[in-house]
Formats: sequence, structure tokens, C-alpha cells
Amino acid sequence: MKKIEVSRATLGRIPTYIKYLKNSYTEYKNISATTLAKELSLGEVQVRKDLAAISGAGRPKTGYNVTELLSALEDVIKSDGTDKVVIVGAGKLGRALLDYTGFREYGLDISAAFDIAVTNTEYSHTGKPIYNVSRFSEFCENNNVKIGIIAVPSNAAQQVCDMLVENGVRGIWCFAPCVLSVNSEIPVQYENMGLSLAYLNKEI
Amino acid sequence: MKKIEVSRATLGRIPTYIKYLKNSYTEYKNISATTLAKELSLGEVQVRKDLAAISGAGRPKTGYNVTELLSALEDVIKSDGTDKVVIVGAGKLGRALLDYTGFREYGLDISAAFDIAVTNTEYSHTGKPIYNVSRFSEFCENNNVKIGIIAVPSNAAQQVCDMLVENGVRGIWCFAPCVLSVNSEIPVQYENMGLSLAYLNKEI
Repeated sequence: MKKIEVSRATLGRIPTYIKYLKNSYTEYKNISATTLAKELSLGEVQVRKDLAAISGAGRPKTGYNVTELLSALEDVIKSDGTDKVVIVGAGKLGRALLDYTGFREYGLDISAAFDIAVTNTEYSHTGKPIYNVSRFSEFCENNNVKIGIIAVPSNAAQQVCDMLVENGVRGIWCFAPCVLSVNSEIPVQYENMGLSLAYLNKEI
Repeated sequence: MKKIEVSRATLGRIPTYIKYLKNSYTEYKNISATTLAKELSLGEVQVRKDLAAISGAGRPKTGYNVTELLSALEDVIKSDGTDKVVIVGAGKLGRALLDYTGFREYGLDISAAFDIAVTNTEYSHTGKPIYNVSRFSEFCENNNVKIGIIAVPSNAAQQVCDMLVENGVRGIWCFAPCVLSVNSEIPVQYENMGLSLAYLNKEI
């Protein structure tokens, strides 16, 4: 994946651009930021900035070549498929994430889940394996596990975090409502569902 | 619920304060921000600011009365229980949220789910009802539904949003990766799982 620096807001619009361009590139060979903005009801300045950050300046009058633009947009978000994402904790939330299809829009997919309570390997509805947690190290030796998702209760989260780091995982997405102690080189993203709902509730 | 303005960061620490105080108020009658900070390994300035925002200044030398502080902290986060939260969309994610226990820490709980594919009322593992969506209006007439969670696919999200608003729901938490068109007086909080993972993946 190219290391282009884009904001979270820009990243969020990329799937919209890709979808639109894929559906319309029989119609256009080139497209301008103005046309794209109009078709997607987005601000023209915003679209112009997004495309400039991702694909450089468009050609005067003709704009962007649709095929090239699509490929540049996909380069930003698509994982090359060799980096794996796994989940530790196959409770309801873990299993829902394991089968969640919305990651594919970003070229990502969760390969497997691990749970202390699973003795014989299970398979999710979409056929993803759920292994006993004792098989985690072996899995990491055979796969390039880049991201680990923590979906265990808070009291087990630190232990799982340590296991992820020891096995070479390079980024952590934590759904347990806790604060992890971890080497600062490893990015941790927290998803505290309770807090999110409480915050919304306070806004009303 | 008191309309005290606290930051999201402060709000996130409140359950920690409450847990600690509940476990230790046989030990202390009064507690200072300094002691609380030390016990919880938090910055003293941070704790002092949090408590001042929530419960005013502590008394010199003695600090805060633990019972009063607990009650002030709970007032900030606890819903009074008359406001209901419901989910529309009882797929895997919807059902995981329906039974998620982490909302209770903030005095919140999801009352029911609604789904177009559910014909006879079902019950989740924790006993929450899942109704056919045709019963949504009737449910809203009989319950003060404050927050609606959208957990349907993107192409159905706007229709669900309109239904929520028509039935008096005052805040929306949207898990569909889309942008909703809604009256600006109604706060909408988006939770785009695909985007969150893609963003973490880009950081590594």
C-alpha cells in the first residue's frame, strides 16, 4: 500500500469515488473534479483537494483519466492481501466482526478468530476459522499478521495485547473498554461502544 | 440526566472513578483528587479538572465527600432509565449490540431490536425482544424512544433513518457506511467499522 498521507475524511470518501467511477467508466474516459463533485453532491473544493492529494493535478480541460484515477484511489486503500487481520475473542461482537463484509470495501478482510473457549476449530457463517487461542503463535509463524483485534472482556485485554505484540502484530484495534499498556511504536485504536452511546446520549 | 458539559475524555474516565470509589468507600469517607489520581495512576491535574467540572471544588485538606462525589459522577452518566434505545437491523452486528453489556456502565441499555426479516417476535440470548419492523411505530407510542441505532445495510439506512425521525427518535447512531440526510437538530453519530480498520492499517 502506498504511503500517501490522507486525512480520515478523505479516506472515508474514497470508496464513494471508486464506486462511482467503476459504474461510469464506460461513459467517461476522462473526468474532471467538477463533474465528479456534481455527480456525488460533494463540495468541488473538497473533491479537488482529495484528488490532488491522491493522484496529483488533473490535466487542464480534460481532468483525470478514469482508469488511472481508479488505480490511484485503489492503491491508497487497498491492502495487497498479504497482511492479515485476526480477532482474539469470538463472542458475539468478535463473530459479528469476523463476518462483517464492510472491510472488503477497503481491501481488508479478517482471516481468523481465536478464543479460549473454542476447543475444536469452528467455522463462522462465511467459513472463517475460529481456533483455540493456543494456536495463535503457530498461525502467526505461518501468516503475516499485521493487525490484531481485541474483542475479549476488559480483564483479559492486557494479556491478549501482550500475546499479540510477542507474536509480531504491528497494530491493535481494541474493543474492550480499557487502556492498554503497549510499546508506543504500535498504534492502538480504541472502540469503546459504551462510551460512544453515552456521549451521543449526553448530546441530546 | 444533568446537562453538565464534560469532554469525551472526561466522560471516558467516569466509569473508572465510579468503580474505584464504590470499592473503596468503606475505607475513605473523604478523598482528595491527589489520592484518587495516585490510586488510579492518572495525572493529578487531569483528575482535579475532571472532578471540578463534575462536582465543583473539593474542600481544602479533606477533599471530596465520597458519597456526594459518587452521586455527582453517576448523575453525569446515568440515564434515568425512562429513555429507551432501540436498534433497527438484527443481523449479526445488531444482535451483538443488543446483548452488549458495556452500555450498562453508562446507565444505558438497548430495549429492543426491529428487523424486516423477523416475522414472529424472537428473543436474544439476554431476553431482549426482536420485533418485525412493522411494530416500530406502536413501540414508539408506548415508550420514550430517545436513540435509534441503525444496523441495516447502507441501501436501507436512509429509509430507516426517516422512520426513526417520523416516530420521534431524538438521536441516531449509524453503523451503516453511508451519510444520512437528516434534520440538523438531530445528532447523528457514525460508526464506520471498515473505515476505522482501513485507517489503522494505513497508520502502520
